[in-house]
Amino acid sequence: MWLASFRSLLCKCFIPRWLGLCRLIKTTLIPLERRMLLAMLLNLVLASFVFLSFIRDGSAGITSSFIRSEWPAVDIPLDHEAFAVPKGYNAPQQVHITQGDYDGKAVIISWVTTEEPGHSHIQYGTSENKFQTSEEGTVTNYTFHKYKSGYIHHCLIEGLEYETKYYYRIGSGDSSREFWFKTPPKVDPDSPYKFGIIGDLGQTFNSLSTLEHYIQSGAQTVLFVGDLSYADRYQYNDVGLRWDTWGRFVERSTAYHPWLWSAGNHEIDYMPYMGEVVPFKNYLYRYTTPYLASNSSSPLWYAVRRASAHIIVLSSYSPFVKYTPQYMWLKEELKRVEREKTPWLIVLMHVPLYNSNGAHYMEGESMRSVFESWFIEYKVDVIFAGHVHAYERSAVTGIHYLTNQHLFT
Amino acid sequence: MWLASFRSLLCKCFIPRWLGLCRLIKTTLIPLERRMLLAMLLNLVLASFVFLSFIRDGSAGITSSFIRSEWPAVDIPLDHEAFAVPKGYNAPQQVHITQGDYDGKAVIISWVTTEEPGHSHIQYGTSENKFQTSEEGTVTNYTFHKYKSGYIHHCLIEGLEYETKYYYRIGSGDSSREFWFKTPPKVDPDSPYKFGIIGDLGQTFNSLSTLEHYIQSGAQTVLFVGDLSYADRYQYNDVGLRWDTWGRFVERSTAYHPWLWSAGNHEIDYMPYMGEVVPFKNYLYRYTTPYLASNSSSPLWYAVRRASAHIIVLSSYSPFVKYTPQYMWLKEELKRVEREKTPWLIVLMHVPLYNSNGAHYMEGESMRSVFESWFIEYKVDVIFAGHVHAYERSAVTGIHYLTNQHLFT
Repeated sequence: MWLASFRSLLCKCFIPRWLGLCRLIKTTLIPLERRMLLAMLLNLVLASFVFLSFIRDGSAGITSSFIRSEWPAVDIPLDHEAFAVPKGYNAPQQVHITQGDYDGKAVIISWVTTEEPGHSHIQYGTSENKFQTSEEGTVTNYTFHKYKSGYIHHCLIEGLEYETKYYYRIGSGDSSREFWFKTPPKVDPDSPYKFGIIGDLGQTFNSLSTLEHYIQSGAQTVLFVGDLSYADRYQYNDVGLRWDTWGRFVERSTAYHPWLWSAGNHEIDYMPYMGEVVPFKNYLYRYTTPYLASNSSSPLWYAVRRASAHIIVLSSYSPFVKYTPQYMWLKEELKRVEREKTPWLIVLMHVPLYNSNGAHYMEGESMRSVFESWFIEYKVDVIFAGHVHAYERSAVTGIHYLTNQHLFT
Repeated sequence: MWLASFRSLLCKCFIPRWLGLCRLIKTTLIPLERRMLLAMLLNLVLASFVFLSFIRDGSAGITSSFIRSEWPAVDIPLDHEAFAVPKGYNAPQQVHITQGDYDGKAVIISWVTTEEPGHSHIQYGTSENKFQTSEEGTVTNYTFHKYKSGYIHHCLIEGLEYETKYYYRIGSGDSSREFWFKTPPKVDPDSPYKFGIIGDLGQTFNSLSTLEHYIQSGAQTVLFVGDLSYADRYQYNDVGLRWDTWGRFVERSTAYHPWLWSAGNHEIDYMPYMGEVVPFKNYLYRYTTPYLASNSSSPLWYAVRRASAHIIVLSSYSPFVKYTPQYMWLKEELKRVEREKTPWLIVLMHVPLYNSNGAHYMEGESMRSVFESWFIEYKVDVIFAGHVHAYERSAVTGIHYLTNQHLFT
């Protein structure tokens, strides 16, 4: 019953940087009874959403016909129009939004001003050019070695209506800019919704192709599985600069669609040679999450509910073993899942628990040994991960598990 | 050759809180050539120090005859003399010292004043009652929920002579207090030294017995494998208070002998119900380590060299998977080991990699999957861990390993 209501969940797996590979999986309907029967018979729990769709079709599922061209994985040059700075003195740039509460009635809007702090004021409303309401946010900035960031604004807008298009304006005078977003339907098993999934995006020409394909896909929110800008491929001043270019690069989507962030290894930015050793410094100043709404103590792990999905975001590079805050939080969050409201239980993380690829082989073992039994116990439908730039699906069968090349015990 | 020089390394394994068990292992001499031959033949690498001594003796080694009485594991009451506050206005209390540099020519002295900050001045010298030199430290304090800590002083004393007894005085006027410490011999394969090993100490009557036994043992420095005060068994104001009582409790040793700290789960103090969610807050304010001297970016993981030992301290509850700061640091630190200077390579951590006990079973899997291969590659002699309140020795044989009850693959 509840599965039928999630009729157009769209799972897009972009693995853009190296392989130039882009796949689209669209679920087809499987009646709950049949699905449960299959699940019982085959003891398939984890990733059952993906895997069971294959069983019905007797093939690898309905996948996208889109195969991205394999451009050289080189970063787009700084003067490319993809990184264009918006016109006007102190104009807001790097605009991005994310869900602002537990259930989808709030949005956090973030942006950067470069000449001066300016104000953190947002005007918004449900009609274009008519902004009935306003909200005040906060502004901060930071240094990274000798790089000085712009002024980073975050503003929480709460109490929104479900399934409503809102227009918003930020910045001052001639430099102000206008965008829009759409709130999701209420948290309900019968609320249809389309998610796109992107990870390991970077800022190459392949990244641009991936981003444009997502925009055209009709998906409504991005589940981002870590590795945003790859700015850590640069040194000194260029690290911060490449975080800035990435923010401008993805704005074409992030200013309109919420991206639900999770952090990858390229967010750590541990660079002792330049005196920068605090993990996630660039990332945490720029990208925020509604972690307090799910009683988390860190923006790096949290949960939201959106339409018929309960989405749990984990941090592969924060402590997660028994007794750590992330472990203690997840233990409680899993108890809060209400399957009758959110039949889909989705987990995002950067490092996959299972991976038969040579790259990053066995890197998910640490987290697997801690959380796998919970994911099975709570019948997580699907885990989306990035990190390995290759497409792979795995299904758990009891405490043994299979990937497409190896059998582990 | 180098092994002979380490003739009186004393390994004391205290597992005090629950089992009332205290064991003493004294190494006996094995010529290097024979030891290497045995190592090659048997492919025993990890924990070879302990295990090979068994081979020579054909038994479980020379262990202590001391078996601690099993008192009830209840905390000592607050008004017990073990927690006595030193006399005098603002008298320094909770005095503890630790190594202050990489090679043992520096000491960090820490203490707490309660009425007012006072000064962070230390007078010291090589003759009793004659303090030729002085050094100025720092003072800080913090809150934990509504608990306000005393004024915590840390002072680094550098440029000491090896194998020398120093006397030091802290505090003011009639409230000043005097202690002493002995510096280790120079870093050299022929420098004999005795280490004691304590973990999971707490503040019960068993803890007191353990502490007194260590003091009588003739060991010179404590390798502490995590879980200091167990103050997290308390709530609200009492958490901070039990950190204070523990500091006074162990002062009888820590003011005179360096304790090399590692953190356990009872240092995390993650207590969201009272609004305290920053891991290790109480611990990090009170107990410091010479982490900068080994290029670490956190007091929670670091290394020191002392006599003929290179000691690496790891943090079981900080990020350690690939790409994290602890991982990156350890990778470099292992390359810095000079076996010709420090033939003993010792690793401390709280959670054991191997454990056949029901309590905390498999909790070391996460770190094992990341670091075990390095420990084998770099021929770590022995890993000391706490956490499980039971005595156990394990030996690695290739990539299979044995504990005393199970065989894992």
